[in-house]
Amino acid sequence: MHYKLALLGFGNVGREFARLLMRKEAELYTRYDTTFTVTGIATGRHGTAINPAGLDLTRVLAALESGQSLDQFTNLPITDSLDFIRKCPAEVLFENTPVNHATGEPAITHLRLALENNMHAITANKGPVVHAYRELTALARAKERRFFFESTVMDGAPIFSLFRSTLPAAQLQSLRGVLNSTTNLILTRMENGETFDQAVKYAQSIGIAETDPSADVDGWDAAVKVAALVTVLMDTPLKPQQVERKGIREITREKIAAAKVEGKRWKLVCSARREGGSVTARVWPELLFPNSPMYNIDGTTSLVEFETDVLGLLSIVETDPGPATTAYGLLADFINAVHK
Amino acid sequence: MHYKLALLGFGNVGREFARLLMRKEAELYTRYDTTFTVTGIATGRHGTAINPAGLDLTRVLAALESGQSLDQFTNLPITDSLDFIRKCPAEVLFENTPVNHATGEPAITHLRLALENNMHAITANKGPVVHAYRELTALARAKERRFFFESTVMDGAPIFSLFRSTLPAAQLQSLRGVLNSTTNLILTRMENGETFDQAVKYAQSIGIAETDPSADVDGWDAAVKVAALVTVLMDTPLKPQQVERKGIREITREKIAAAKVEGKRWKLVCSARREGGSVTARVWPELLFPNSPMYNIDGTTSLVEFETDVLGLLSIVETDPGPATTAYGLLADFINAVHK
Repeated sequence: MHYKLALLGFGNVGREFARLLMRKEAELYTRYDTTFTVTGIATGRHGTAINPAGLDLTRVLAALESGQSLDQFTNLPITDSLDFIRKCPAEVLFENTPVNHATGEPAITHLRLALENNMHAITANKGPVVHAYRELTALARAKERRFFFESTVMDGAPIFSLFRSTLPAAQLQSLRGVLNSTTNLILTRMENGETFDQAVKYAQSIGIAETDPSADVDGWDAAVKVAALVTVLMDTPLKPQQVERKGIREITREKIAAAKVEGKRWKLVCSARREGGSVTARVWPELLFPNSPMYNIDGTTSLVEFETDVLGLLSIVETDPGPATTAYGLLADFINAVHK
Repeated sequence: MHYKLALLGFGNVGREFARLLMRKEAELYTRYDTTFTVTGIATGRHGTAINPAGLDLTRVLAALESGQSLDQFTNLPITDSLDFIRKCPAEVLFENTPVNHATGEPAITHLRLALENNMHAITANKGPVVHAYRELTALARAKERRFFFESTVMDGAPIFSLFRSTLPAAQLQSLRGVLNSTTNLILTRMENGETFDQAVKYAQSIGIAETDPSADVDGWDAAVKVAALVTVLMDTPLKPQQVERKGIREITREKIAAAKVEGKRWKLVCSARREGGSVTARVWPELLFPNSPMYNIDGTTSLVEFETDVLGLLSIVETDPGPATTAYGLLADFINAVHK
């Protein structure tokens, strides 16, 4: 089977995904009898190109690296992202525009339009999951397409597909985890003597923290991830604003040093628990003992621990992820969407 | 869809599976539109029963608990396990007879016959995986049935289905883990001051270790598990005899105490690595530092760490499993077999 792919949003993750597609092209053919062409790429500030015959990814990446616009690769005038989705001949849309935690837009509009146009809708963007999971899933079902988003929590580690495909008839009762790598990295650096500001600067310098680090350090990113897990895996819609939330600004270097003396560590812990008919969720700094499974989670590594009615505790740890890991989540979603 | 199930082997795991089937009956119907009857149960020493209209599991379990034979529930004369498979009207066979590490028999013969008779073949028995994976998988494919065995490694935790369903196009390069709970429990008890013999006795008293503990303490069980993982996940047939193997008999209480003083722990570590065209596998005691992900794996908890070409390290931890966990693996295999 041959698939035409449209890539909307082409930052670090989008570019890694393009590289991964090239690297896995032969394997997709031999293992999954699947071939593809990328028929459209829309960037935020470097132009947009559609070519029904397929874009040359090597040339596209080289052009962007030398600061050129993608407009040179297209004859089709494209006015905006919606116009791109309407005009690009594709069976799968990969939505990787910047996340909006408060509303999920414009990603939701992009994904809805893609599904309405009979494309599978795949995203690494958490916004649509917490703000439109039920709507987009219902629309996908009605269109016999898929709305998949494996890369939104713990990068490309299989979390949503774990429950979708490998844990049938399991009821998720509670979860706990370290899901925000920026705060975890900052706390790890502060244990080694850096101030909060120094640690934030370091995280910014390696591209992990944003210029305004508040989405991470105030626990918003973690809250969105917990809300996404609860919404999907506990089938209980939850907005990030409903997550009880405290960031790491009060965890001073002195507090961290005092904990270290006692052999303990501060971590920003995400948790959620089903109680009766409702779910309570929380993002909160916790002082952990060495026997906690989260104690050894360093730097950008993340962990989530699931309690179900059939398995006791099952934990997933992803060590040192990066943009290539997120890109793999998109590839896995693609294969799973077209093969089931 | 309605399925008739045959249970061959009805020890702890088989009985837990029967209880789980009853507990999940309503959920299987509402979530998966699946109903079932158990049409046959064959025990090792308490008789065999076939009833095409369905056996009453509550009565069967009660009878066994009071020491009665299952022969009272059947009018059909059944001579042996092969006769049971031939005569029992069923779409799925669950094979849970005792494991034979050296040959995989008689489980292989049971599973082959089930597939030849157009049943899905599901087992918690590691023997057939290491001794007949390719043959049984090919036969299942030819018959458009499934040969599934999730419960053979790490009980019901999703390991095989993880790679089958959630990690498409991922190449497994290496793995490391603590996969034998008996030795791990023995080492944990010895850290708390018990001798090897005392720790073995304790493991036997709670039903974890067998009367002859050598399959565990000499590393055979771990070797079979590594061989199963390599055979299936690296698509490279490997017999337990080909795993470089050393058990825990040389890890004295003195060695353990000396490690403890240095903040280190002994663990029986399983590992495998693809190098060029071949795979090397090993079961060997290792002295671990506190920052090892395996350091905190206590008692019957197990962990496996997978290195793939797309995700870096992904680890799965299963905390405190038991017969109910293994039973869940059988249930997951059942649902995944009939729903895909």
